[in-house]
Amino acid sequence: MSRWAVILAGGSGTRFWPLSTPARPKQFLPLATMRPLLADAVARLEGLVPAERTIIVTGQALLEETRRVVASLGAPRVLAEPRAASTAPALAWGTAVALAEDPEATVLSLHADWWVGDPATFRATAERALRVAGERDVLVTVGIVPTRPDVGYGYIERGAELEPGVWAVARFTEKPDATRAAALVDRGALWNSGLFAWTAHRFFEETTTHAPELAPQVPRLLAGDVEGFYAAVTPVAVDISHFERSTRVAVLPGAFPWDDVGTWAALSRVRDADDHGNVGVGPVTMHECGETVVWSDGDPVIVDGVVGLVVVHANGRVLVTTRDRAARLKDLLDRLPLPIRDLDDSAHA
Amino acid sequence: MSRWAVILAGGSGTRFWPLSTPARPKQFLPLATMRPLLADAVARLEGLVPAERTIIVTGQALLEETRRVVASLGAPRVLAEPRAASTAPALAWGTAVALAEDPEATVLSLHADWWVGDPATFRATAERALRVAGERDVLVTVGIVPTRPDVGYGYIERGAELEPGVWAVARFTEKPDATRAAALVDRGALWNSGLFAWTAHRFFEETTTHAPELAPQVPRLLAGDVEGFYAAVTPVAVDISHFERSTRVAVLPGAFPWDDVGTWAALSRVRDADDHGNVGVGPVTMHECGETVVWSDGDPVIVDGVVGLVVVHANGRVLVTTRDRAARLKDLLDRLPLPIRDLDDSAHA
Repeated sequence: MSRWAVILAGGSGTRFWPLSTPARPKQFLPLATMRPLLADAVARLEGLVPAERTIIVTGQALLEETRRVVASLGAPRVLAEPRAASTAPALAWGTAVALAEDPEATVLSLHADWWVGDPATFRATAERALRVAGERDVLVTVGIVPTRPDVGYGYIERGAELEPGVWAVARFTEKPDATRAAALVDRGALWNSGLFAWTAHRFFEETTTHAPELAPQVPRLLAGDVEGFYAAVTPVAVDISHFERSTRVAVLPGAFPWDDVGTWAALSRVRDADDHGNVGVGPVTMHECGETVVWSDGDPVIVDGVVGLVVVHANGRVLVTTRDRAARLKDLLDRLPLPIRDLDDSAHA
Repeated sequence: MSRWAVILAGGSGTRFWPLSTPARPKQFLPLATMRPLLADAVARLEGLVPAERTIIVTGQALLEETRRVVASLGAPRVLAEPRAASTAPALAWGTAVALAEDPEATVLSLHADWWVGDPATFRATAERALRVAGERDVLVTVGIVPTRPDVGYGYIERGAELEPGVWAVARFTEKPDATRAAALVDRGALWNSGLFAWTAHRFFEETTTHAPELAPQVPRLLAGDVEGFYAAVTPVAVDISHFERSTRVAVLPGAFPWDDVGTWAALSRVRDADDHGNVGVGPVTMHECGETVVWSDGDPVIVDGVVGLVVVHANGRVLVTTRDRAARLKDLLDRLPLPIRDLDDSAHA
């Protein structure tokens, strides 16, 4: 019963514009440490899953850069999807690779762009998730113990306790408004992180039963016809196709600091902030500021006497916005003329 | 009785950092229009003083650039001071040049870095100042009719009315605090602009009587020994050496929009602002902003959802500060490491 990890690394987000570009999305950015989030994600598995059983699923366009980033980390396997099709097909492919090598494989599902504040507790929790998945023959989701009523996350409400520290899921709630988020946190709901565990066998059983978007194509996938699988599959998130529909689901609380680094404002959580809550990365000077995030990969940036701002100089663009509005950066980008919004990677390689 | 103009263009300010540099101070920047403030200043005299009797006083380091900027504007004379010595020596030199060509010369004193909103009224006022200076044989100061209780200006309180529209000066008040500025505006005090007029003869009479900083060296100056004059003179502002000490002073109100463009925030007065008080110059996009000034001579700058900010990308630096703090930019620069503060003109020529 070998342990495997599937790291989803297909993001193409705009949330870190202008630092992120189509060829260098979030997982390649050194947002939390000096190395890319993806490298952090692979290194975090050390002692839990060996590199040769770590599978990274990314897009064709990102294949080379993905290989480059993880080359020095034991060279995990990198799979490049023929097309983006949300998370369930990617996890099915990764799980199929594990199954082909070990019919008893258990699989951990992770994302390439997380920050984790306490890797030891993270590993202990993931290990238990893998064990519970095997012992109870269920799909396991690790729900993060919330530190604030964040409206950027989905929530998991727990039902019956199945064994000490393991619960059935009563309800998944998509991103709530502020009032509802506060109520959920008060009731002990957990953040839906995307940290999952299953046996390969159970994953495909549940796929057959509950995921018509994938089920008819699974035989192709298991026969090695990845192109055929992706050509015919319907994109769907594993949260919907499996976790919301299956009855064989358990939730395990994860009591480690965790962040999906979803906006520029997250940097004040995942990096050491000064006494006034400021984080500066690069040639940055802040004077009498508060709760402000400043990043420069270019010219020196001097920020004076402001509160709650995000200031970025990257890839030949300067962005000034507020912490709150940084979460809705896509809305802003949609209004920008293409020559300003679109970043030319070749010019800044 | 020929009319002359002396334009003081020696500024080396830091108030428009990082756009201004030691080799390209404020008067060379296109802050109000598409051309440098200095070019605006010369062009503004058209019909009032001909270019051949317009004298620009600047520093040695700025001589070439000053000549270049005004070359297409009738090529006024450019004098380069051996050293910076405040305004009285510079105006003495300019006035001496006029006196050497015409013993009856009247001289208008101006600064190179003003914005004037109504050049026709400006010229009519300046013309009257020159006439009053000759007719009454006094030093004339034009006091600007204030539009707000600005704490960045000195104020002139009027005494007896000498003739319709011309007053004796009761008192000069240096930059007041906000309460006092409001009281001064309520009482009808005027802004001390630095727009002056005198006959060359009266200027040197008053110098002899009231300005010991200059008086002993004036014979050298009038004999053409400019180096000797500057070597021995004590730096002093003409406001102090002449206007505050002399009894032969009159004030004339100037009812034209005027600004000394003293801070980044001034751009919202001297440039057309949008309905929300925003001014953007260069490749700038503002979205849901208010009372914000954005300038870029470089990369596209996108500013989103902020109020009352100044954002500048120029000469390889990004500055983000507030409108209020922009007036105290020097305090900020004094705290910056030299490699960040000092701008390399050669790299951005």
